[in-house]
Amino acid sequence: MPRSIPGLKAVVLAGGSGQRFWPLSRELNPKQLLSMFGTESLIAAAVHRILPFTDGGSAITVVTNERLFDELRNHLTAQPDPELHRVRYIQEPLARNTAPAIALAAATLAVDDPDAIMVVLPSDHLLEDGGLWADCIAAAAAVAADGWLVTIGIEPTRPETGYGYIRAGEPLPGSAVGLAVPHVAAEFVEKPDHARAEEYVSGGVHFWNAGIFVMKAARVLEELDSAGGELAHIADVVRGIAALPPADRNREDARVAFAGIAPVSVDVAIMERSDRVAVIPAPLKWSDVGSLLALEEMADPDSAGNVRSGRGVDIGSRGSIVYSTDRLVATLGVEDLIVVDTTDATLVLPKERAQDVRLVVDALRAMGAPEVTQPKVSLRPWGSWTSLLKGLGYQIKLLEIKPGSKPSLQRHEHRSEHWIVVAGKAVVTCDDRVTEVPLNESAFIPLGAVHRIENRGESLLQVIEVQVGDYLGEDDIIRIEDDWDRDSR
Amino acid sequence: MPRSIPGLKAVVLAGGSGQRFWPLSRELNPKQLLSMFGTESLIAAAVHRILPFTDGGSAITVVTNERLFDELRNHLTAQPDPELHRVRYIQEPLARNTAPAIALAAATLAVDDPDAIMVVLPSDHLLEDGGLWADCIAAAAAVAADGWLVTIGIEPTRPETGYGYIRAGEPLPGSAVGLAVPHVAAEFVEKPDHARAEEYVSGGVHFWNAGIFVMKAARVLEELDSAGGELAHIADVVRGIAALPPADRNREDARVAFAGIAPVSVDVAIMERSDRVAVIPAPLKWSDVGSLLALEEMADPDSAGNVRSGRGVDIGSRGSIVYSTDRLVATLGVEDLIVVDTTDATLVLPKERAQDVRLVVDALRAMGAPEVTQPKVSLRPWGSWTSLLKGLGYQIKLLEIKPGSKPSLQRHEHRSEHWIVVAGKAVVTCDDRVTEVPLNESAFIPLGAVHRIENRGESLLQVIEVQVGDYLGEDDIIRIEDDWDRDSR
Repeated sequence: MPRSIPGLKAVVLAGGSGQRFWPLSRELNPKQLLSMFGTESLIAAAVHRILPFTDGGSAITVVTNERLFDELRNHLTAQPDPELHRVRYIQEPLARNTAPAIALAAATLAVDDPDAIMVVLPSDHLLEDGGLWADCIAAAAAVAADGWLVTIGIEPTRPETGYGYIRAGEPLPGSAVGLAVPHVAAEFVEKPDHARAEEYVSGGVHFWNAGIFVMKAARVLEELDSAGGELAHIADVVRGIAALPPADRNREDARVAFAGIAPVSVDVAIMERSDRVAVIPAPLKWSDVGSLLALEEMADPDSAGNVRSGRGVDIGSRGSIVYSTDRLVATLGVEDLIVVDTTDATLVLPKERAQDVRLVVDALRAMGAPEVTQPKVSLRPWGSWTSLLKGLGYQIKLLEIKPGSKPSLQRHEHRSEHWIVVAGKAVVTCDDRVTEVPLNESAFIPLGAVHRIENRGESLLQVIEVQVGDYLGEDDIIRIEDDWDRDSR
Repeated sequence: MPRSIPGLKAVVLAGGSGQRFWPLSRELNPKQLLSMFGTESLIAAAVHRILPFTDGGSAITVVTNERLFDELRNHLTAQPDPELHRVRYIQEPLARNTAPAIALAAATLAVDDPDAIMVVLPSDHLLEDGGLWADCIAAAAAVAADGWLVTIGIEPTRPETGYGYIRAGEPLPGSAVGLAVPHVAAEFVEKPDHARAEEYVSGGVHFWNAGIFVMKAARVLEELDSAGGELAHIADVVRGIAALPPADRNREDARVAFAGIAPVSVDVAIMERSDRVAVIPAPLKWSDVGSLLALEEMADPDSAGNVRSGRGVDIGSRGSIVYSTDRLVATLGVEDLIVVDTTDATLVLPKERAQDVRLVVDALRAMGAPEVTQPKVSLRPWGSWTSLLKGLGYQIKLLEIKPGSKPSLQRHEHRSEHWIVVAGKAVVTCDDRVTEVPLNESAFIPLGAVHRIENRGESLLQVIEVQVGDYLGEDDIIRIEDDWDRDSR
């Protein structure tokens, strides 16, 4: 049973763009929002992984950047568990690697309580939690209270040369909780060669650095201070930002100061330098979901070594990964191939090139392909919208509005809209009129009219929206009133 | 310049299902309707190949089966050239290979004129026509008038082991027209081994049997008669069907009789048996479009041997074919691979398996996948419709209606329809009312109402149709009046 640890805070790092997961991930739908390994997205799973040990969602801070903030909040507030609606957010003005992100979170938590113990977790990894995980958190929190910087070390299962390893030294006396035994971290080794990685797997004293840290907020800043130079400057800048009233933390001088700090990883800036680092070895099932190969890592292959998801058939393929989100995919006699098929883009590559998907993303970005940025289904706090067709002067969307929800009261300067209710019942506001629009009826919103659609029913409202106008961009929304206080642009 | 040959008839064989072209081809959108090699479909190109030598489209008979008849006629009447609207059709009750198809066409033409000379052409091949082609037709028609059964023999360009070859014997004296010289056909060789095929390429006397025949209608039936047995029975049956009034030719006893004849190829039934067969050797660029490899045969590869069509990027692939109809396709480091990506289905296979695509189609048919049968865009004589989304109790279509055209006056028993005009202007009939519906306005057709939409304008009319109902099948159409006399079901 997980035990709540009084005052425990969590910091979930969610600034990653996950380019190597295109076309499943997009710039505005990064890897942490994907749910290819279960019913939950990676970030929802990360929050749920630490939630039982905290005093609820408000003890959890999600650190992300300004670009992703809306998408992340829309995503988490769309989750059924209300605790996920209560998490707090820190928006970095831009991505500056993990040390500045963690330092900014530490400084912010230290304003209220310098002794606050924070668990830092990536938002886009997989971890099989269970009893041992709870023991790890309990043991880590206890030694972190004594000033240790604690990492969870994953027992390696293969000679992976792309990971960092931590060598465990002596155990810390009296610190064990169940099977979780904190040890002194004796050495950090980044990306060993294959021979060494093989030794590490069999040796039993090296563990994967999974980017999970438990430490007192003040200790993070102390370590940076004592390093001096550009690392101490990180601590100065984040303390300065955290000292501002929350509404001012994104003001221009704060942004400029943050942009000026060094983009250093927490491993280099703190863990590899400090002499008070502990590691808790743990044989947990873990993946950093570093490439499309993770689709295979977490699945059960068929007798020919294929892993398949989505509609389709295969004739005689071997060792291949076929992942389809919507459409039918057929494969015939392919070997060691990855096929990822999404509503608007398909990617085909040999497994051995899985690390190079960013080359494709770079090429697509250079040609201005919208498929790099925009996902086909856009989650919103009230439900979602999906673009079905864009033509010259018109666009068709499917709106899905959750029971009791409503998008903002808004108007458009360049388009009118036709709404046809195909499931549920809508309540439509159009200027001064409020009317019920039942199944199989329609409403017309003339250009410029102040309008809103609302689902007061108990089942999902589905509406086909046909937009007609000379400009159909998502930025032609003037919000007059919004349940989620979104940008009033 | 092509010369019209008085009284010349053409028979275009269009019963093929083209399974090896899935997912580009579908059961209801077979290979002959595809236009992947240019602006015209293969069948439109086939008709245009022979049209200049005839007295117009009405001298051309398209032989197909009942299943494909509507699709073929919709397709040809949707072409801009009005001559293609005038072609005649023979519907076989079911596919019975080429000998019965050609015999049925011969018997039908022989009713009016037993001496009629007919050019038989496949509807789904590629042929680079030009001056030599015209000479071939003229020379072939002249010797056919003397009772020869004439084939056009394509000069082989590679040692293809999948084709049939014809060995040319002595030239027929005085029969040459330009460079087209009819020879006695000395031998037919089906699918030689590789060594022999190589000899044939260099030997200069063997030619590919391209399935193009020129012969007197009566001679086809004579040859069958003289063979006796099941071949003579073919002639009897098709003569019996042709003797019926046209409207009766599909009556039950005719269908049963046709179903009872032997499914034999014209090569086996006639050409390989007759002693009066001529071949005209011709170095024409030809392809039977036998597999997806034809996508490569007819294109210019890049420096790494890749052939690509549609939006997308490639990083470092070699010798591959990437064909996309709509969506973005990215490839990274693949070799000798074929990727075919269509709106609703994707196929990936190595080039060496191109002949085995039917295995995929068989597997999909066994699982009842609609992608085997139904194309995403359905051509109609008045334009086309595309299914954008099917949900529970609703379906969304894009209708495109050509200037001056209108779908049938109809009603539905199970659905109502919302029409929103997104381009052009519609005239909508709904029971007793006829109203103009301009751009950005909509109309509602209640369940059971007699209705029609019409484009009286001069530009394309585009309409978003949202259907709502408990049953949304294409067969819920009761046609009251139709410009194309389609099934009044």
